[in-house]
Amino acid sequence: MNTPLRLGIAGLGTVGTGVVKIIRQKANLLATRAGRPVVITAVSARTRDKDRGVSLADYAWEDDPVALAKRDDVDVFIELMGGSDGPAKAATEAAIASGKDVVTANKAMLAHHGQALALAAEEAGRVIRFEAAVAGGIPVIKALSEGLAGNDITRVMGVMNGTCNYILTRMLSAGLPYQTVFEEADKLGYLEADPTLDVGGIDAGHKLSLLSAIAFGVQVDFGAVVLEGIEKVTIEDIRHAADMGYRIKLLGVAQMTGRGLEQRMSPCLVPAQSPLGQLEGGTNMVVLEGDNVEQIVLRGPGAGMGPTASAVMGDVMDIARGFRLATFGQPAAGLAKAQAASTATPARYYLRMSLDDKPGALAKVATLLGEAGISIDRMRQHDHDETSAAVLIVTHKTTRSALDTALSGINKLDVLQTEPVALRIETV
Amino acid sequence: MNTPLRLGIAGLGTVGTGVVKIIRQKANLLATRAGRPVVITAVSARTRDKDRGVSLADYAWEDDPVALAKRDDVDVFIELMGGSDGPAKAATEAAIASGKDVVTANKAMLAHHGQALALAAEEAGRVIRFEAAVAGGIPVIKALSEGLAGNDITRVMGVMNGTCNYILTRMLSAGLPYQTVFEEADKLGYLEADPTLDVGGIDAGHKLSLLSAIAFGVQVDFGAVVLEGIEKVTIEDIRHAADMGYRIKLLGVAQMTGRGLEQRMSPCLVPAQSPLGQLEGGTNMVVLEGDNVEQIVLRGPGAGMGPTASAVMGDVMDIARGFRLATFGQPAAGLAKAQAASTATPARYYLRMSLDDKPGALAKVATLLGEAGISIDRMRQHDHDETSAAVLIVTHKTTRSALDTALSGINKLDVLQTEPVALRIETV
Repeated sequence: MNTPLRLGIAGLGTVGTGVVKIIRQKANLLATRAGRPVVITAVSARTRDKDRGVSLADYAWEDDPVALAKRDDVDVFIELMGGSDGPAKAATEAAIASGKDVVTANKAMLAHHGQALALAAEEAGRVIRFEAAVAGGIPVIKALSEGLAGNDITRVMGVMNGTCNYILTRMLSAGLPYQTVFEEADKLGYLEADPTLDVGGIDAGHKLSLLSAIAFGVQVDFGAVVLEGIEKVTIEDIRHAADMGYRIKLLGVAQMTGRGLEQRMSPCLVPAQSPLGQLEGGTNMVVLEGDNVEQIVLRGPGAGMGPTASAVMGDVMDIARGFRLATFGQPAAGLAKAQAASTATPARYYLRMSLDDKPGALAKVATLLGEAGISIDRMRQHDHDETSAAVLIVTHKTTRSALDTALSGINKLDVLQTEPVALRIETV
Repeated sequence: MNTPLRLGIAGLGTVGTGVVKIIRQKANLLATRAGRPVVITAVSARTRDKDRGVSLADYAWEDDPVALAKRDDVDVFIELMGGSDGPAKAATEAAIASGKDVVTANKAMLAHHGQALALAAEEAGRVIRFEAAVAGGIPVIKALSEGLAGNDITRVMGVMNGTCNYILTRMLSAGLPYQTVFEEADKLGYLEADPTLDVGGIDAGHKLSLLSAIAFGVQVDFGAVVLEGIEKVTIEDIRHAADMGYRIKLLGVAQMTGRGLEQRMSPCLVPAQSPLGQLEGGTNMVVLEGDNVEQIVLRGPGAGMGPTASAVMGDVMDIARGFRLATFGQPAAGLAKAQAASTATPARYYLRMSLDDKPGALAKVATLLGEAGISIDRMRQHDHDETSAAVLIVTHKTTRSALDTALSGINKLDVLQTEPVALRIETV
């Protein structure tokens, strides 16, 4: 048990540097907890000469992450480069082929290639761990795949993109429109180089697909995640939702239904007083529901050097302690692709539309909803300006297809001024 | 890997029955996730003939849990009898001596004998797991000892007795005095046979001492937990706290300070808008703070058949998967007893007292506080009746010893009508 565990780290950005710092600062603590030393033998990054605030002099340097992954003095390949393909994937594959375990924070790579990588690791008798890929410092992969292993998971929900949650909560607190807060977030460096990854829900969708695979024992299938970003969420909708006791969150929901696996990442209304509704700023939250455990809520920082490095180290320590777990919690060879649910679970919906301010306009909308079998729970109308009226409707529970039928009719109405907004109200 | 893991379950109350149900209902799922079958071979309980809603016909029966613990066809002894000593301890010791791993929900036994049992297990090469002993279904032991293994833990806090939280939140929501709600809770079956275990903070203190041992790498030391129950919390204090934006919670706090290890379980004020402040009813919450992860908040059901059995199964599945972890996350032989902090970390305090309604009364109190070096942040006085005035004071940060000096003087004042109430305001 006293053989050191030797790490090779590829990618020395914020997270990689954080991992190096922890291993340097806590050598004794880590060795005591793991029962063996945890050491870095080699590192790799795009730029060698850069002040990272930590000395790399003790470690071998590789320009090529694939070469790092193959080194004989590396037991665990730590992939912190990012990107779904390219060097990250090539090096991960090389590591597995060379008999290394892998720890990665790369949600995009696993969302797209998780099944293939898991199979390769399984055949090679190696593990892939990815706690840092989902919800930053929150040990949610561990909670789901280990702590709740005695449950049939019934639903997984999460606010897993801190940038989107920052934008949505800041819009409400400062009363600012989306575009203004988006630009603020950009200046603060909160956005990915391609901001669509954040605000389009893609990053959070990647994470949801990974949780789904573990929760429901199926192949990861990011392509089946129904994605809707926050770009169209207006300050008006945020305010109206708040007036009615709701918050708008970019919420991921995965559940296995009689119609197949439902995976959605979209702006939803949740009760303002619920844990999800109360989540402010860049913090992440994941809700895990199982038939025995009922509901567990996990909350913590979704990004940043310390929290993400903490998650990487959780995986490293598991490997150092000899814990061997299949990538998605059970043998990858036995995972089937889930049938994707053709429609979403029925829900209440929030609708907002702008109508001509003339007699009968509202009646036309109400009629179309009624014809689609949708009953109205609450309705508010207030004058927008001299010629238009803003109408807010909260429906009773309905299917999305019934709603789409009604919306399609409403879209054709001659009294409609702008396309209606329809947001799902999630039961939490 | 296809050798079945054979369980012997001692104690077939709510939790034990829940575990039997899960293993019967989810045999395939558990085998897939663990890579091997998980089976029950023998059970033991005080009463054999009792309808538990689940068949025990497939399992050997033992009247004596010690005999069960020694059986050759048992790999893991599941201790769900409870009690710090007696049969639970005897059977656990017998199991370890017979080379069995142990899974237990017994916080009292581990709080009192955790170090000795951990040493025995270590010498025998066996593990003791106790996820179900702390915070019900929340996988907090796992999060702390594994997920956050790359952190120096800086503070652990928790609301870990659902009954107390039920009583305190119900007092506020229904406006009822302590005694009335206590009797309600008793009728609802929420209280332990000895209710002091709940309302005296002992049960929650047991849990805190277990988390402390893991968090700070020290011997479990329940005797060093400064305990204060909720028996003296009045509806007046709950209301006054609410008026000032606080909630009163039975809050456990453990932190390592320059003065030694601080472990407190006591009624504290926390901000109403914080996750702890918002926690209602029987739900538990644990807050874990580490130098890298910052703050993780875990919330979930603190008791009940399903959640507690879920936690037991998490431990069973870890053992089935071959995960071997020292009882408190590092070798017990290396754990030292921590110096207990002689005083609590300075904090703001809420004070309430009833004074004679005559000139100069308040000045005397203010003078004594000032002489002890305590400055006043907020003060409210309102007539109580014709002869007395209720005085509420929120102090700035002070030491408990300075406060005790002031309180000792205040207690001697001739204008004082009832003993002052002093509650700590915790920073969360």
